[in-house]
Amino acid sequence: MTTSHLISEIQRKKSFLCIGLDVDLTKIPKHLLKEEDPIFAFNKAIIDATHHLCVAYKPNTAFYEAYGLNGWKSLERTIHYLNENHPEIFTIADAKRGDIGNTSKMYAKAFFEDLNFDSVTIAPYMGKDSVEPFLEFENKYAILLALTSNQGAFDFQTKTIEGKELYKEVLETAANYQNSDRLMYVVGATKAEYLGEIRKIVPDSFLLVPGVGAQGGSLLEVCNYGMTSNIGLLINSSRGIIYASNGEDYATAAAQAASILQQQMEDILNAS
Amino acid sequence: MTTSHLISEIQRKKSFLCIGLDVDLTKIPKHLLKEEDPIFAFNKAIIDATHHLCVAYKPNTAFYEAYGLNGWKSLERTIHYLNENHPEIFTIADAKRGDIGNTSKMYAKAFFEDLNFDSVTIAPYMGKDSVEPFLEFENKYAILLALTSNQGAFDFQTKTIEGKELYKEVLETAANYQNSDRLMYVVGATKAEYLGEIRKIVPDSFLLVPGVGAQGGSLLEVCNYGMTSNIGLLINSSRGIIYASNGEDYATAAAQAASILQQQMEDILNAS
Repeated sequence: MTTSHLISEIQRKKSFLCIGLDVDLTKIPKHLLKEEDPIFAFNKAIIDATHHLCVAYKPNTAFYEAYGLNGWKSLERTIHYLNENHPEIFTIADAKRGDIGNTSKMYAKAFFEDLNFDSVTIAPYMGKDSVEPFLEFENKYAILLALTSNQGAFDFQTKTIEGKELYKEVLETAANYQNSDRLMYVVGATKAEYLGEIRKIVPDSFLLVPGVGAQGGSLLEVCNYGMTSNIGLLINSSRGIIYASNGEDYATAAAQAASILQQQMEDILNAS
Repeated sequence: MTTSHLISEIQRKKSFLCIGLDVDLTKIPKHLLKEEDPIFAFNKAIIDATHHLCVAYKPNTAFYEAYGLNGWKSLERTIHYLNENHPEIFTIADAKRGDIGNTSKMYAKAFFEDLNFDSVTIAPYMGKDSVEPFLEFENKYAILLALTSNQGAFDFQTKTIEGKELYKEVLETAANYQNSDRLMYVVGATKAEYLGEIRKIVPDSFLLVPGVGAQGGSLLEVCNYGMTSNIGLLINSSRGIIYASNGEDYATAAAQAASILQQQMEDILNAS
């Protein structure tokens, strides 16, 4: 998908919502457990109920790997369902991968070619040759961890390296990687006040913002600091939407929760 | 596996060799491609031919994920084969995972419980709550990336953060994580001269050292700087062993290549 296509979908749907498909079998409605593939059944119902309210879905691969072969099968079925039925949706494999060059190439092939995701999240610690293999694919994106939403972000990311915080060094260094126009960045909503600083370094890049909702970040604050003339934001919510109810009404409840965020986004887009 | 068991295996086999099972279908002998599961057939033959020469195997998960469901199945069969036939072997899932707490817990469950690996490699960028879930499992180990063997390591790892190089900050910070006695560290052999500095911070920890062989690191130099009274080293070689031949003699050739490294290790152990 091109970024201009993504932007036009945001404008059409009045939404820059990304829904995290982090499916935990202990949290989904009990009646689904008798399905042949409960994870896919859950995802399909969530997608059917919410696809008009969001522009992206983000399965976190950990939740699928935790169920071994069956989990991997559920992930494949989910991405195939999205690609076949909703090609207008931007898909994110939240995998946080990164390895030496020839290995990163294998990961890029796995997520971009075999599974046909539009993007994959990447950890920056191993530097240039661990990231660039992901940037070789046209109309595919690597979403680099910059400043994450968890407490552990303060262990290293916000510490000062060569005169600036590590996350800024990551943003500045990555901007010089080959095909860096195919980079987006993860910036946690729990650290919204940092977004102003981040926008000075990457004024136009899309930011994937987790941490609104369950982790306590504020949508309005994120938009105040981080929104660009092309929006430039994908706001993720996972648990607050997909586990809005654990009864038989879970899909309707997810749509209601997504709709509240979508309406807030529409108001923000109309006001800006 | 306990570390004392690992150390006694090193002493019994006179080897601290780890063999990387990074199986690429374009590089394995052509005649294997007609097998029902070529990756597992290759791994099984390599394991059968080399298990007496090494103390650890390290499949890099990227190479399995690149083949989707079939690849994941090959990984499962490989780790089951090792657990059933060679429980004395230390197994490493080279996955370089790391995510927010509840997600890292899912990864830990996937690799330690479902697949029953002894250890998994972890990226440090997201800090404490991304690492600690891996340290909750008794006799299991998280192998944290400190200083990697690739060129991109110089992008961030060797830069100065709060007065010291980032990789040192990672080592010092991680030493304070809960259950940090279950941590080991990745230190690339291509940067052997850094090992002296690293030993000042983690004098007793096991180091997993990739980069000997194909990437150009020297075994003797690594041992000079990094070996402890309990050895404290696992030296990985992947391509140099498993692709020593791409003919029908691939397993014998792999054993020969492994045997050369094992003999060098035996000499070093005898001399020390």
